[in-house]
Formats: sequence, structure tokens, C-alpha cells
Amino acid sequence: MKILIINPNSDPTMTKAIGRTAAAFAGGAYETECRPTPGAPKFIETYEDAAKAAPGMLALVRENESGSDGFVVACHCDPNLDLLKEATNKPVVGIGEASMKIASMLGHRFSVLSSARHSIPNKEALIRSYHLEGLLASVRAVEKGDFIKAGRTAIDQDGAEVIVLGCAGMTGLDKKLQAALDAPVLDGVICGLILAHGLARYGVGPSKVRRYQPR
Amino acid sequence: MKILIINPNSDPTMTKAIGRTAAAFAGGAYETECRPTPGAPKFIETYEDAAKAAPGMLALVRENESGSDGFVVACHCDPNLDLLKEATNKPVVGIGEASMKIASMLGHRFSVLSSARHSIPNKEALIRSYHLEGLLASVRAVEKGDFIKAGRTAIDQDGAEVIVLGCAGMTGLDKKLQAALDAPVLDGVICGLILAHGLARYGVGPSKVRRYQPR
Amino acid sequence: MKILIINPNSDPTMTKAIGRTAAAFAGGAYETECRPTPGAPKFIETYEDAAKAAPGMLALVRENESGSDGFVVACHCDPNLDLLKEATNKPVVGIGEASMKIASMLGHRFSVLSSARHSIPNKEALIRSYHLEGLLASVRAVEKGDFIKAGRTAIDQDGAEVIVLGCAGMTGLDKKLQAALDAPVLDGVICGLILAHGLARYGVGPSKVRRYQPR
Amino acid sequence: MKILIINPNSDPTMTKAIGRTAAAFAGGAYETECRPTPGAPKFIETYEDAAKAAPGMLALVRENESGSDGFVVACHCDPNLDLLKEATNKPVVGIGEASMKIASMLGHRFSVLSSARHSIPNKEALIRSYHLEGLLASVRAVEKGDFIKAGRTAIDQDGAEVIVLGCAGMTGLDKKLQAALDAPVLDGVICGLILAHGLARYGVGPSKVRRYQPR
Amino acid sequence: MKILIINPNSDPTMTKAIGRTAAAFAGGAYETECRPTPGAPKFIETYEDAAKAAPGMLALVRENESGSDGFVVACHCDPNLDLLKEATNKPVVGIGEASMKIASMLGHRFSVLSSARHSIPNKEALIRSYHLEGLLASVRAVEKGDFIKAGRTAIDQDGAEVIVLGCAGMTGLDKKLQAALDAPVLDGVICGLILAHGLARYGVGPSKVRRYQPR
Amino acid sequence: MKILIINPNSDPTMTKAIGRTAAAFAGGAYETECRPTPGAPKFIETYEDAAKAAPGMLALVRENESGSDGFVVACHCDPNLDLLKEATNKPVVGIGEASMKIASMLGHRFSVLSSARHSIPNKEALIRSYHLEGLLASVRAVEKGDFIKAGRTAIDQDGAEVIVLGCAGMTGLDKKLQAALDAPVLDGVICGLILAHGLARYGVGPSKVRRYQPR
Repeated sequence: MKILIINPNSDPTMTKAIGRTAAAFAGGAYETECRPTPGAPKFIETYEDAAKAAPGMLALVRENESGSDGFVVACHCDPNLDLLKEATNKPVVGIGEASMKIASMLGHRFSVLSSARHSIPNKEALIRSYHLEGLLASVRAVEKGDFIKAGRTAIDQDGAEVIVLGCAGMTGLDKKLQAALDAPVLDGVICGLILAHGLARYGVGPSKVRRYQPR
Repeated sequence: MKILIINPNSDPTMTKAIGRTAAAFAGGAYETECRPTPGAPKFIETYEDAAKAAPGMLALVRENESGSDGFVVACHCDPNLDLLKEATNKPVVGIGEASMKIASMLGHRFSVLSSARHSIPNKEALIRSYHLEGLLASVRAVEKGDFIKAGRTAIDQDGAEVIVLGCAGMTGLDKKLQAALDAPVLDGVICGLILAHGLARYGVGPSKVRRYQPR
Repeated sequence: MKILIINPNSDPTMTKAIGRTAAAFAGGAYETECRPTPGAPKFIETYEDAAKAAPGMLALVRENESGSDGFVVACHCDPNLDLLKEATNKPVVGIGEASMKIASMLGHRFSVLSSARHSIPNKEALIRSYHLEGLLASVRAVEKGDFIKAGRTAIDQDGAEVIVLGCAGMTGLDKKLQAALDAPVLDGVICGLILAHGLARYGVGPSKVRRYQPR
Repeated sequence: MKILIINPNSDPTMTKAIGRTAAAFAGGAYETECRPTPGAPKFIETYEDAAKAAPGMLALVRENESGSDGFVVACHCDPNLDLLKEATNKPVVGIGEASMKIASMLGHRFSVLSSARHSIPNKEALIRSYHLEGLLASVRAVEKGDFIKAGRTAIDQDGAEVIVLGCAGMTGLDKKLQAALDAPVLDGVICGLILAHGLARYGVGPSKVRRYQPR
Repeated sequence: MKILIINPNSDPTMTKAIGRTAAAFAGGAYETECRPTPGAPKFIETYEDAAKAAPGMLALVRENESGSDGFVVACHCDPNLDLLKEATNKPVVGIGEASMKIASMLGHRFSVLSSARHSIPNKEALIRSYHLEGLLASVRAVEKGDFIKAGRTAIDQDGAEVIVLGCAGMTGLDKKLQAALDAPVLDGVICGLILAHGLARYGVGPSKVRRYQPR
Repeated sequence: MKILIINPNSDPTMTKAIGRTAAAFAGGAYETECRPTPGAPKFIETYEDAAKAAPGMLALVRENESGSDGFVVACHCDPNLDLLKEATNKPVVGIGEASMKIASMLGHRFSVLSSARHSIPNKEALIRSYHLEGLLASVRAVEKGDFIKAGRTAIDQDGAEVIVLGCAGMTGLDKKLQAALDAPVLDGVICGLILAHGLARYGVGPSKVRRYQPR
């Protein structure tokens, strides 16, 4: 069994970091591979970035469909996720969707740590599209790289009980932050892997009844 | 003053029909032009169709920004609307957004007539993204081209008080249907024009504070 | 074509100011006239004020129906708006409804600047009646006449991306405030005019199917 | 202790029927009186009817404030309720608000039986203003006076577990209908009395902090 | 007529205090009795506390059903309320449900004063289960026993217009706090009594249609 | 690694069936065991059934905490789930929560097949507690054992795109029904296992910040 992890940007460093996290979590029980998106920008931040990543992401799914059992989209804003769910019968899991839905199972409310204030409204729009707005404590931008302070504020002031790392580039920070905050901290890459692998093993993928039915 | 109407597909017949509706409504008070999207599919139905239309739509906005005072996106699923709002300081209005928000000002609930059952969930997701789900009576697929029957059912069974034409390809049907149903029927092209022209005249466009701020 | 603007209060100064804003925006393309409401209080603030304005507002609509193509209710709390929509087949647009629905098309969330803390809950109740509560960043009372500070706080602390002037008496402040805040600022009088004129031109008014059906 | 019941219309027959229900329920434990509204229409159905009832209702409250311990507004559309809450420090209870909030304590969802289809949207708007829309099974118009059939359909098809009589004119039908349906049936007049008397005895009335603060 | 008040914990001091409040409010018009729950913990704070109280609460209802006309559950987290509504045909009212629904009738938004920050999420979950989250200003923990400060902050900062005492153990504080805050302050025990007595007198109890139907 | 599956009822046949499904899915990659709840009823249907199962379920968790890496609660109404999340630091997953949150990742809306009409409101209340009501197409009772008909109706009439088996006793029906309906069909036992095993492997459990903090 193999899960292909699509890094929607073209940054090789981030691709490697995501791949390391995934391989460590899978632990040899199944194969994982992380691939950057050809033709995509170095970082996905704007609507234009997401649009530019679409053709390459679609190509990755199509070219690797037969050799993969499931896909993870490894950018926390879940760019082009509907597009990929439409394109394949194999399970496709966004790390934003996976981490925030799992967070909702572990505590009363969750906060998302975000790399920039600029991206807060886009994250909020994503959260609403998943019907999770009532379970959100806050989206908090990390100021000056101080994750512990941002997480502590989310817990103490915003009422968060679970922390979600809001960018694939934060992969690997979960356990240290969890120890510092004494609260669950979720890395979307691992959450995505849990669900993509589980669904692949279960043999279910996107429903083709209407919304994700291709022409 | 000139409003450029972007038809997100590449169908020349639909482009002409939209252009006719727009010119008739503007009545010479301002200039309108409808352009098809280069490189786009003939019809926008799936997520892939929308993704394929993105580069051409973006190019149309960029190439015509200096010569236009505002833009209308003339497909009722408002494809790539956030992308275009991010790309320009000029007003950008989707005909889905415009027609449904105007509908909410004219009666208790509105129904959208849709060309196919396949597209109902996508329309519902769009409606939720505009926070309009509580004002929606139904999305009704028109069976066998019988618009009057679909509209009548929406009014009598679903509780609609206003009817929205759910596809730019339905342009021109509004007045005949309105007469038959004795209820307001809205053509998105005209609704989009009212708002795009009004905003252009007012001198306001997409806020660049955060969500639509380009890099 | 003529749009009659009903100032729900009886203050001649405010009536004139609203009329000036409207005439300047219409720019001769259509006729506008602003009339105070006979028998109404000098300012609409309480539920009793709104009730006292009702007979005069209704009379203005009835007496001017044949000579007007549409109506704007120029008080940002949209007093007696349902009553007037019921009373006529011509379009009736409240400046609260118009400005806040247009605001929702220009950015992620909007804030309303209000003249007094007293009126915040009433404004919130109005916003909920329009199903706009999820798009509201805040209702902020302007302290000591400092609009720039109130708007800046709304943008920086509350997450607003668009500012709505929450009182017809603030007409004319939009452009200066917009320049200071670098974000769209909306004058309800102009927003109401855009929609009332557009709907009048389009030939649609309040649905008479059920909610606004008179006896 | 005395509760004044304001019948917002001017119909003497309905006034008497409401008075009888109230007196029977109070059973001598406290005084009740039902008064028609001077200057009001014979029946409250439209927004104009409600506006016309406002001055008389306000006068009834003001003239009887010192001699009454609480007020009930005995029309199920709760006309001018905010106006009266603003006007007095004594408790003011609408029979719509009282009956539907009590209904929400007795079962999963409630249905309102309404006298006419015309009034369904107005009732739905009222229900939303109380944040009760998620607890509503349906508003059902009673066809041809068949209350049992309407109630049965609400229970079997719409999922109602409690039935609310949606018009003060239906007073007295509760117990017979309850026996026929084997489900709680609520008469708003009694629900209003329970709360108005209870609040009067408790010594609490409308908060004057902001929303119901008179000038 | 007799209302049995079930104190879900086993603390005799709190039981007496609740009993005193109830007897004073009933004033001899009907009988009230407050009983502690056999086998329950001294204080209900956690989910385990609530589970441990369930058998004793159920026994109290069953053993006293014939001798009581209605029940009040006198813990503001309404533990096992659904269980008791299922167990009897007599009205069962939780003091949390009663006080917060009554609060929603007296002002724009209410705040709940809570004894500990620990219990805020549980209270929020309860409030959502009653569909009251849109009417909530805040749940505020009382720091160092300063109820006036907590209430004042709720009113001034959170927008509350009505204050709800969030623990049966706060019974008796209402009138002093109301005088200090100049806003309605609600003791759940009295609110529960108003509704339980009113419903018992009216002859309605939990609907047995589906949700509260025992096997 | 071992996941203990708690069957909240005491039925040995259902316990075995659940155990078989779990073992087959785990496929030897980790250990699974299904245990009935001592002292619980044969079937969990009412609030009283759930209350009676609580002590045995709590005992199962406490006695098996050191020997288990995670827990699944294998009744689709997720009885006492908050209680168990409070009781342990190990992951606890309800099959209702798991299956419905996973369903929301596979299609636009999901329907739950329920064994009896009686349980529809309870399921709806559960769904709302998870903030999933906007993603629900319907809860459909299976009439006369015809699962295919119920699923087909959910898809065609209610707009479902994913089907959730709404009772642990339906375990094993998923693949046959999925083939018949050509839409994803989810067995909660497997969904619960995917998440409990994944979370156990990840090393995260219920947050102890506030809501699930034991005394």
C-alpha cells in the first residue's frame, strides 16, 4: 500500500520535511512518498498561487493514480482539494480538513496557528466551508516565531483545548509544542496520513454521486 | 465608463447572448462588452472546468484593467471569483453572488433554477460560502426545459418568493417567466451589471486589507 | 426615472445632506429627491421613534407611488422597511440592508460604525434578520467623533475589511475615511441608490407571493 | 397581582375568548383582564395591521402601567413586542415567544399551526428572530379548519413532537387537540400568562441596559 | 399542588438553601420540597459526577411521581435532564434551561456567571444543545467571589443585558446583584419553579412522541 | 498495540459481530478486542439504557487502561462518550462521531440509516452536538429491513452522497450496500478503528485543558 503526498508548492526543502514526517509515522507499515508540484509557486499563499498549482496537482494525481492507494494534499489551506476529489476514485485527504476534524474529536474547541495575519480570513473561509466555525477558538498568527506563546494565548484567552499547526511547513513541531503546552498539538501531515491510509485500507473514496462526479 | 463581462467559458453563442442582455440593459448609459475566456472549456460544470478557465480569466482581467471600470463574471457558479477579486482594484461581481443577494432583498426566500441535478451540491456549497443558506428555498433542476413548472413548484412547494436563473445560458428568460409566475425573476447578468456599474461609479472595489491582498 | 428617498426622521438638515449626496451620485442620470417624514421625531433611535415614523413613511410611499420609480429608506436601522415593501410594487431599498449586503461583496468581514453604544444591540438584531451575522466583524460606536480611530480599530482588532457608515447622518464622510483607512468605506445612501435605481430600471420590486402581500 | 392582556386587534369576540381562557387558568390566584386595542384593525395579519395597532398598544401599556404587574401581548405574531418592552419596566410577554420557547422544553421539535399560508414567512421570520429556527419542525397552515389533520401531519411527516397554536383566535382548542394527537398542545395565552405572572411575582422586567432603554 | 426540587448532589447545606429560596418564592401558593440525591457526589462538576447522580435522580422521580405535580432539577448544568424527561409524564424543568430561556426574553444577550473556568466549555455545550449560543454574551467565571465585578464586566465588555446565576449554590444572590448592576439577575431555582409550576397547572409534560418515549 | 472496543450493551452476539469486523479490518497489524458492558441492557435505545451502561463502560476503561492503547465506543449513539474521554488520557473514539466526520470528507452530504423512527430525534441531537447538522442529508429509518431502498431514497430524494450505518448491529453490511448503491457506505466500527488506532499511534488523546479534565 502506498500513499502519495502532494506538496502543492515546489519547494524541495518543505517537500523533504513533509516526506520525513510521513515516513517516520508510517514506520514501514505502508509506503509514503512526498512530491512537489511541477509548475507551482515556491509557497502557496494567495488565490493566484493556488490557481497556479492546480494543473500540476491534477497531473500528479492522474499520473500516479494506478500506483497509489490514496493521496494527501499537504498544504494546510487545502488548495484545489475539491478538484482532486473529483479527479479520482482513490481517497484524497487535505491536511487542513483532516487535522481540524480530528481536533474536534479531542477537545471543546481548537485553535489554528497560522504563519501570517494575511492568511487568517482565508483560513476562516476554509473552516466555514467544513462547517467547523462553531468549533474554532481562533486562528492565531505566530508572532516572531514564538509558537509556545501563540499556543498559550490560544488556550488561555481564546478557549482552545487543541492546537492545530496551520502550515505544512510547521511539520515536526508538534511533540515539542505539545509537551510545552500540555495540550494535544496536531501536525496535519500525520492527520492526513491516518485518514488517507485508513480510507485506502477500507476501500472508500470520494462519492461520485453528484458533487465529485467528473464529466 | 465601461464594464467588461467575462464569460468564463469559450462558447461564442453564449457570449453573444450575454452581451446582448447587457447592452440592452445598459441602454447606452455606459459601455458593456462580453468576452469569452481563451483556453476555457465550452461549458463550466465541474471543478476541472473551473480550474481550466482560471488562467484565461486572470489574463482577461489583467489585459483589460486599464480600459475597464469594472468586471462581471458571467457564470452563475462564480468560478474563480476570489482569484479575480484578488487580482484587481476594480470592482469584480459574480452573477451568482449578485443575483442571490439581490433576491434576498425582494422576498422571504429565493429558489435557484439549475440546469442539472448534478450541479445542485456545488450551488449549495456556493450559497453557503455567501452565508445565504438560510434564505434559500431550494435549488431546483429544470426538467425537460419546463422553466414555468420548475418555478411554480419552487414557489408553491418550497416556499420561494423570488426566482433566480441559475445559469448565464438562461439569460433573456426573465421577463417571460416573471409574467408567468407573478413573482420576481432575476437574470444574473443584469444583477451583476447593476452592482458592477454602481460600484465602479462609486469608486469602490475589493478590499485589499487581507483576504484579497495580492503578494 | 425618479428615486424618492425617504428620510424617516423630520430633521431638515439631515434631509438636505442626504439629498445632496444622492444628487451628486446620480449626476443627472436620473432624478432624486429626499423628503423628511411628516410627524416623525427629529431622530430615529428607539422602537418608539420607529413606530412614530410609520404613518408618515407609509403616506409618503402612497402619495408618491405614481410619480416615483423606486424608494430608498435613508435611516441605517431600516425602520418600517417590511411595511413599505408590503405597501408598494415599486422597489424599496433600506440603506442598512443595501450597504451591508454590498459590503459583504467587497471583503471578508465588515464593521458598522455606530453613533452610540445604545444602538449596538438593535443593529445586531437587524443584521441577524438579514442573515449577515456571520459576515460581521463588529458594530463599533464612534467615540468622541473619531471615525478614523473607530475604523482603524475595526480593521486591526476586529478583522474588518470593509467599513459601513451606520447612520444616514454620516453621509459624506465616506471618501475621506476611505483614504485614511485604505479600505472601502460605504455610505448607505449611495448603496441604496445603486440598488433602487438598478431595480427600478430592471423592473422588479418586492415579491407579492406571500410575505409582502397586502390584504 | 394583576396581569393585563393586550389583544392587539379590536375584535370584541376574540378579546372575550382570550379573557375567558386567561381567567380560567388564573383561577382566582391573580387578576387577569383582556383589553382590545383602540384604533387597531379587526385582525392583525399584515405589517400595516401591526403598524396601525402600535399607538393603541403603547397607550394601553402607559395608561395601565401603575395598575398592572405585567403584560401579555395576545397575538401570536407578537406585534410591537420590542416597542412595549422598551416602554415599561414591568414584564411584557408575547404569546408567540412564550409558547414557542416553552414548546422547546417539552420535545425535540415543535410545529406551529397557522391560520393561513400567507402568514408562514412572517412566522418564520419571527421564529428566527427568537433563534428558534433549529427547533422548528414546520409552520403548517390549517386547511379547512381540520386542526387534527394539520397536527397529525406535523407530527408524522415534519417530525414535530409539540404543537403550538399559532393564533390567539385558536384559544381553547388545546386540550381537545392534545387528546386527539397524544402530544402536548400549547395555547399561547396560557404560556404568556405563566411567564408574565411568574416574572411579575419574581420582580424582573425588560433589561434597560441598552436594547430596551427608552430615550 | 406540589413541586419536587431535585438537588442532583448530596450536599445538605445546598439542599436547604435551594429549599428556602423555593419556599419563599412559592409563598404558600403551592408546596415545594427540595431533596438531595442519594448516592450522588457532594458537588456536580464532571461528567463522572453527573453519571453517578443518575440512578439516585431517577429513583427520586419514580418514587415521588404520584405525589408530585412537577419536578425541578436544581443544578445549573442540567445533569440527566433528558433522562428524567423520558422517565415521567409530569413536567421536568432544568434550572439551566429555564433561567437561560427566560433570560432570552428580557434582553438582547445574557451572560452566565460560573463558579470555575473549568466548567465554561461544559456550559457552552449545554447552551448550544438548547440552541441559545446566538443569544449568549459570555460565560464568565467569578474570580475571588466578586460577583459584582464579573457581572459588570459581562455587561460592559461582553454586551450582556441580563445576568444568569450559573450554579444552584448561588441561590439567593439575585436581588442584591440586580440592585448593584441595574440589570435583571436570574436565579435558576426560581425560573425553574415558575415553569414547572406553570406547566403542572397547565397539565402538560414532556412529549412522548419520540425523543422522550420510554421503552 | 491494542485497541479495546467497548460494546455499550451486553449482547454477546453483537459483541462477536463487532469483534469480527474489527479483527478483519486490523488484519493482524494491531490487536483488537470487543467486550460487552457488564450491567448494561441488551440494547441501547433510551436515555435510561445509556445511563445504565455508564458504570460498566467506565469500569471497562479503568480496568483496561494500562493494557490498551485506545478505545472505541461501538454504539452509533455514542453513549457516555464525554464520560470516557474525561476518564482516560488514551484516545477514545465513538463510532457515531468517527463515521459521520469521515462521511463529511467523502461527499456533499451524508444520510444515516437508523433502525427505528423512535431514535431519529436522538440521532439529530447527537449530530448537532458534533456541529454536523449542516452536512446531514437525513436520518432515515430502515423499513422492513430494506437497506437498499432506504439508502436509495436517501441518495435520490434527500440529496445524500454518502451513507452511514447508524447502528453497530449493522456491522458487515457496508460493502454489499456500497456495491448496490454505488456510493460510499461507512461502518462506524471500522471508522472508529481507523481513528482510534491512528491517534494511539500518533500519541494524542483527549485534551485535559478544561472540558475533559477529571477532578
